[in-house]
Amino acid sequence: MFDVFGTVVDWRTGIAREATTFFSQHAPEVDPWVFADAWRAQYGPSMEAVRNGSRPFVPLDVLHRENLETALKDVGVDPSALPHDELDEFNLAWHHLDPWPDVLTGLTRLRSHYILAPLSNANIRLALDMAKRAGIPWDTILGAEVVRAYKPTPESYERTVELLMLQPAEVALVAAHNRDLDGARHAGLRTVFVPRATEHGPGQQNDLTAEQDWNLTACDFIDLADRLTPTHG
Amino acid sequence: MFDVFGTVVDWRTGIAREATTFFSQHAPEVDPWVFADAWRAQYGPSMEAVRNGSRPFVPLDVLHRENLETALKDVGVDPSALPHDELDEFNLAWHHLDPWPDVLTGLTRLRSHYILAPLSNANIRLALDMAKRAGIPWDTILGAEVVRAYKPTPESYERTVELLMLQPAEVALVAAHNRDLDGARHAGLRTVFVPRATEHGPGQQNDLTAEQDWNLTACDFIDLADRLTPTHG
Repeated sequence: MFDVFGTVVDWRTGIAREATTFFSQHAPEVDPWVFADAWRAQYGPSMEAVRNGSRPFVPLDVLHRENLETALKDVGVDPSALPHDELDEFNLAWHHLDPWPDVLTGLTRLRSHYILAPLSNANIRLALDMAKRAGIPWDTILGAEVVRAYKPTPESYERTVELLMLQPAEVALVAAHNRDLDGARHAGLRTVFVPRATEHGPGQQNDLTAEQDWNLTACDFIDLADRLTPTHG
Repeated sequence: MFDVFGTVVDWRTGIAREATTFFSQHAPEVDPWVFADAWRAQYGPSMEAVRNGSRPFVPLDVLHRENLETALKDVGVDPSALPHDELDEFNLAWHHLDPWPDVLTGLTRLRSHYILAPLSNANIRLALDMAKRAGIPWDTILGAEVVRAYKPTPESYERTVELLMLQPAEVALVAAHNRDLDGARHAGLRTVFVPRATEHGPGQQNDLTAEQDWNLTACDFIDLADRLTPTHG
């Protein structure tokens, strides 16, 4: 199972790319990289109300759309002055993210040996669109919307493992985030850390190294496939 | 979206094949084809308690395991005299079914034009194991377990369409069963009939022809791809 945003796909570059197009029409003064970071900064807080039960489950696309308005205000743009349908369209930027360059090669090699699925906070259609566009060879889409629980709650991992009819220790979560792996470990899953040192851009401070003794650390998905699939000759 | 048992995979031949092995060890007098039909005969009735709300949702693997005991009694075999773990193993026969010969070619051609997913009563792992073994190129696994409703209830179709963030009329159900298509039509989906005249063996009486004016009838999945994808030259 794989975390997606940051681990499989480079969300910052993808969002900045689509933000460049959007702001060139609506607010050329906005730095698209600053905006990408502002939008993503709302990600964690926006799920918190669902996690703590004060809000019923809503898919991540709904949260992203709300967060878009907050992020626009954060960079000095009034969302109510912009066409509603163009905001809806911009919100689909998350569906068009590219995988890191090692992902397709690594997953294609792993796929003949393992069941591969995202265990992401992305809703089904969001993860599906990313996969179909980029050719990511998932066996199925799993994650928050299927089990109606956002990571890193214990239920998000436990219910997903149950759907796979596996024991927790038969499943590994691959993630670039120590906090996600900590949640997976508490639910009994195996843990694989793959650092993505530029997920947050050149000045990244967090998640540069493994902060616990995860079951495995791999440089990227090709290294992961080297470690987890039989060698030839 | 595709019905699976009968439409995509030939359950009768697959179950009879694994029943041949099972009964050669435990009850050689049982005809494996008769047993395949007896096991499948419990399929519809076993879901009825879930559909009418008198039983909470349980995955199809659980129903198949219960139905296995009923079917064994129907052919004169006492299930309590057989090893429990061998019955559990035999129950996985449903995970090893082969697709009809036109399926992989047809779906592979359709896949570059459409989102393809099963909308089946199979649970996720069951549909996933069939797909991974046979190479069926689904974009994700959907169906009863994801929406916790068995076909042909309206919710089974409606909730699945909602997860795809589509309008019902943007989705077609492909099925070899008129009853399933009737359910899909009531939920607003488009309907495609693909007859599988030997699903129930040489003496099949039902579902030989379209019983309503479905949006499309195709001979098989290759014919379906011919009709639904652009022609070249």
